[in-house]
Amino acid sequence: MDQPKNDATLFAQMKERLFSAVISDALDQVGVRDRVMRADLRPLDPSMVICGRAFTILSADVYEKNRDPYEMEIEAIDSLTPHSVAVWSTNGSKRTGVWGELLSTAARARGAVGAIIDGYIRDAVQIMKMGFPVFCTGLRPVDSAGRSLVIDYNCTVQVGDVLVSPGDIVFADYDGVVVIPKDVEDEVIRLAMEKVRRESATREELLKGAYLKDVYAKYGVL
Amino acid sequence: MDQPKNDATLFAQMKERLFSAVISDALDQVGVRDRVMRADLRPLDPSMVICGRAFTILSADVYEKNRDPYEMEIEAIDSLTPHSVAVWSTNGSKRTGVWGELLSTAARARGAVGAIIDGYIRDAVQIMKMGFPVFCTGLRPVDSAGRSLVIDYNCTVQVGDVLVSPGDIVFADYDGVVVIPKDVEDEVIRLAMEKVRRESATREELLKGAYLKDVYAKYGVL
Amino acid sequence: MDQPKNDATLFAQMKERLFSAVISDALDQVGVRDRVMRADLRPLDPSMVICGRAFTILSADVYEKNRDPYEMEIEAIDSLTPHSVAVWSTNGSKRTGVWGELLSTAARARGAVGAIIDGYIRDAVQIMKMGFPVFCTGLRPVDSAGRSLVIDYNCTVQVGDVLVSPGDIVFADYDGVVVIPKDVEDEVIRLAMEKVRRESATREELLKGAYLKDVYAKYGVL
Amino acid sequence: MDQPKNDATLFAQMKERLFSAVISDALDQVGVRDRVMRADLRPLDPSMVICGRAFTILSADVYEKNRDPYEMEIEAIDSLTPHSVAVWSTNGSKRTGVWGELLSTAARARGAVGAIIDGYIRDAVQIMKMGFPVFCTGLRPVDSAGRSLVIDYNCTVQVGDVLVSPGDIVFADYDGVVVIPKDVEDEVIRLAMEKVRRESATREELLKGAYLKDVYAKYGVL
Amino acid sequence: MDQPKNDATLFAQMKERLFSAVISDALDQVGVRDRVMRADLRPLDPSMVICGRAFTILSADVYEKNRDPYEMEIEAIDSLTPHSVAVWSTNGSKRTGVWGELLSTAARARGAVGAIIDGYIRDAVQIMKMGFPVFCTGLRPVDSAGRSLVIDYNCTVQVGDVLVSPGDIVFADYDGVVVIPKDVEDEVIRLAMEKVRRESATREELLKGAYLKDVYAKYGVL
Amino acid sequence: MDQPKNDATLFAQMKERLFSAVISDALDQVGVRDRVMRADLRPLDPSMVICGRAFTILSADVYEKNRDPYEMEIEAIDSLTPHSVAVWSTNGSKRTGVWGELLSTAARARGAVGAIIDGYIRDAVQIMKMGFPVFCTGLRPVDSAGRSLVIDYNCTVQVGDVLVSPGDIVFADYDGVVVIPKDVEDEVIRLAMEKVRRESATREELLKGAYLKDVYAKYGVL
Repeated sequence: MDQPKNDATLFAQMKERLFSAVISDALDQVGVRDRVMRADLRPLDPSMVICGRAFTILSADVYEKNRDPYEMEIEAIDSLTPHSVAVWSTNGSKRTGVWGELLSTAARARGAVGAIIDGYIRDAVQIMKMGFPVFCTGLRPVDSAGRSLVIDYNCTVQVGDVLVSPGDIVFADYDGVVVIPKDVEDEVIRLAMEKVRRESATREELLKGAYLKDVYAKYGVL
Repeated sequence: MDQPKNDATLFAQMKERLFSAVISDALDQVGVRDRVMRADLRPLDPSMVICGRAFTILSADVYEKNRDPYEMEIEAIDSLTPHSVAVWSTNGSKRTGVWGELLSTAARARGAVGAIIDGYIRDAVQIMKMGFPVFCTGLRPVDSAGRSLVIDYNCTVQVGDVLVSPGDIVFADYDGVVVIPKDVEDEVIRLAMEKVRRESATREELLKGAYLKDVYAKYGVL
Repeated sequence: MDQPKNDATLFAQMKERLFSAVISDALDQVGVRDRVMRADLRPLDPSMVICGRAFTILSADVYEKNRDPYEMEIEAIDSLTPHSVAVWSTNGSKRTGVWGELLSTAARARGAVGAIIDGYIRDAVQIMKMGFPVFCTGLRPVDSAGRSLVIDYNCTVQVGDVLVSPGDIVFADYDGVVVIPKDVEDEVIRLAMEKVRRESATREELLKGAYLKDVYAKYGVL
Repeated sequence: MDQPKNDATLFAQMKERLFSAVISDALDQVGVRDRVMRADLRPLDPSMVICGRAFTILSADVYEKNRDPYEMEIEAIDSLTPHSVAVWSTNGSKRTGVWGELLSTAARARGAVGAIIDGYIRDAVQIMKMGFPVFCTGLRPVDSAGRSLVIDYNCTVQVGDVLVSPGDIVFADYDGVVVIPKDVEDEVIRLAMEKVRRESATREELLKGAYLKDVYAKYGVL
Repeated sequence: MDQPKNDATLFAQMKERLFSAVISDALDQVGVRDRVMRADLRPLDPSMVICGRAFTILSADVYEKNRDPYEMEIEAIDSLTPHSVAVWSTNGSKRTGVWGELLSTAARARGAVGAIIDGYIRDAVQIMKMGFPVFCTGLRPVDSAGRSLVIDYNCTVQVGDVLVSPGDIVFADYDGVVVIPKDVEDEVIRLAMEKVRRESATREELLKGAYLKDVYAKYGVL
Repeated sequence: MDQPKNDATLFAQMKERLFSAVISDALDQVGVRDRVMRADLRPLDPSMVICGRAFTILSADVYEKNRDPYEMEIEAIDSLTPHSVAVWSTNGSKRTGVWGELLSTAARARGAVGAIIDGYIRDAVQIMKMGFPVFCTGLRPVDSAGRSLVIDYNCTVQVGDVLVSPGDIVFADYDGVVVIPKDVEDEVIRLAMEKVRRESATREELLKGAYLKDVYAKYGVL
């Protein structure tokens, strides 16, 4: 019940101390080697960082306008919760910008902390002004009605070639987007925190001019 | 005859009040659903906005140097008119940067207000310094002589997967590039102006924390 | 023996006065028409410029962890020399970020002036802070161990579709990456310096409003 | 009510006398220039020819198994009618073979004359043995349950980049797949029949060794 | 020790009674959902069927000729064993045909029963005449020396996007290529044999004209 | 003047004794390593073999119908000569089938022995019946008028990523398409004839069960 509160503290710490690369390395350490998204999911702006729990959405291309083209989409957005991240599979749609300023505004009103869209968005300048972090594969100023339809949410989806289940932790920064499955989250976060410390030592010795061979022999970090 | 003057006023108003997404929505309203370019035509810089009439250019890859490799290209650029936008189909060339600083300078001298290149350009830093808005699919510092040849201009072209006829209004901003065919331009601009107003109301209610469902029921805008 | 010293002067002059487009034109003049890399090798930041001699590295995807996954990689990085540029073919890997902050730090400690990676990197924000110029095809925060292996270095490689031999001059700026083969380097640099001067005259006349046709007839530069 | 009967006669004549290229030319003549599918929709076997009315199906990728993964798919197949052609948009799925021997058998039992699948199929050898004509983009022996879900049928779909409405005539042979919209079908079929005759004359003169220039001047057919 | 003998019997039975689709379904039943290769690995000829144990090979593109460009390749081919299948990852090479008539002849002499090449081959007509089953992504008559180098064998590889370990059973027919990991092979083969029987009943009822809905309700097979 | 006669004898011998792979190897021997076309140029039928001199054609996509859309195309086809091969760059067009039955008939009437089309063709079944060898990247039954325009012929073109000059020897069989530049043609043909002999010995020993290592040590052929 107090999970949101714990999550708040946890995610704040993670954003302060971790970054996607070190989390990816920690996932490798526990043998989970396929939870980093494709490289074409990019933040609108280099400063954007997201840490929260996945709220998944699934849409597909359609070619005529349904009676109510936004029904399930509105339902999904209105169901977002504090610390959630909208993680949206468009099934690779190149026809429409499924996310925009109004959805960002509505999502933030529900407490969501960002959106990861495997597809296009629109209103990019306004969203950057809002400071709402959005990662996507591109921009296209085209409405979704009659082009793309939300067909499910709160289900397992594939986003950036990674399977994401509702509740998985999503961490995204300028290097990319990493997903931490629930059953390994404690271990992965602990290992990542630890590795951050060792990397500092490596970096400092290299800055003093040491050879990579010697530093790697000493700290085992690359 | 006084069209340029009217155009000047019209384009200034459009740049001040409209954006590509709302024009795309207005095109949808009149049933023109295929005039937004592919997402990989990007501005050199997020602040670039173009509004003007298309002056079209068509080039193709060649593999030996003609007697006068720039003849028709020079003719085309020297034919640009005030408020025109160079809209250039390179037939998907990945070999050369067809546009550059000198063409930007020459185009601006003729009154052109921007360039939409479905292909690569070069001299990007200098063009950004000039403040001449250029949208393109990438950069490559390679001259076109013996690689790409202008074979026609002032003809219908396909740019960013959109058919563009000479004189169509082109509106481009950070979200993408939209083309308004001549026969619907009055209607589309009127509808776009109208929609801008309704969106503000939606945004304000969402900012106050309203649920998307209720706001959409009230204003019908998403 | 004193080549490094000469190189230092030469590369400083080149960075001050030349840019990739004019070097590409000079390569065309001597009939070397295939030494400009693919357009998807981009700098982390628009201000990054590299001029140095290629130190080549070749890696390939692997699917299990070798005894010592970093052995040859460490050997290669520790072999970098002053004014060298790491030019790395990953054989098109999309699985891992082969370059990162620690390699940048180690490379700089050896005197390297930049890296051209035909593949992904990680730690982009930290590398930008260091001011170490890196060109790459994307970002992905995934370690290379068990995914990609350095199989050779100091060999001819193909990077950005260009054959690069150790010691070739590499010049990279915001427009792209150009390689000057050793046997034409004096001629190409001389021609590029010369062309820079002629382009200024062309630009000035165009800025005064001259038609492209007349200016091209006068200076023969486009 | 007797449309099936007329269709039977019409489709038999079309299969006997027409081919996709001449229908494409007739569509061009009436100004419908976008109804020929992408080139990667290929028949399982060079002898396969389809002529019938489109019965459309739309599916999308999913990532978990629904309660009844085949429900709407079974409903669609059981709704096929005599002379119908299953025209299936999978939204570009590369995960599963959506069509197979059992669906072919069931479709034929309902009177369907073929299937055009913009996606993969399986059981190709058995389908070829049955002689049921299927066009698709490839083969993959993977079941659709939990991977792809039929989300609609009897709706407008996009297949092979062509919009297809239920009831449009579909003609497919070794050269490709052509769709004749309902409102131009009489005109297009008449023009195609006519062109078939003129082409024979052209061919005969060319076979006798005439120059293309003279034959084209005489018959205006190429 | 007598595994080869058992394998001989097993593989003969599998080739006689099973096919790739039913094995894929059996893998799904045991929860192994990612062992069917990409659709672009095609047999040279529709009649080719392979069933054997994977012998893996890994090569990568290189850009200069090594001292002994064929050393490890020859070692690998000479190490093939009875009932083995050469399963070759070329790291996506498009430069060379890594397999050909001589390798087919040598492989068969060692008892190998086929080759799965995620890359190009050459001598296709001669290989078809030999009747040695080869699956590949295309043909290119270019030698590998100085273009592609075998860097490892008998290691885990990724072929057709599937991880293959030495000794995994590979089953390939016209529909595609399926890999059965060792730890589930007994269960998967048993389930596949079973499903073959149920499908026959479904097919027969459909052939008699039954509706798919009723037949699926009865047999649960699609 | 008597070149055609010599060519007739030469090409007949080449078709009888050589194949694309051995010619590719001979080109490698003389250091010409970039004259084998991309793998997606395929013959309509496995038995098709072409040997002749290149007659080049260059077309580009257009988006409106010119006054005379076939003018230069007719001129080019009527200029074909005995033993010539039409080698056509469409600049990667995916819109139209530029070659068909009538062009095949007209080309054969002029003495042409085949066509290599880096693009689509139509009338494939009729062309196969004629036995006129055509290699292409696919089929699409769409006329070129208003879609693609011949803009030059008898010029250097790039086809299948290979530069082809008029008069180069083109050899195409099921493995692919090889181009022999004029200045090395005698040497390349001699080396290819020689290599054919050595390969037979290698094959025979391998057929007797010899290990690849020993056979390669003896003949140096792989």
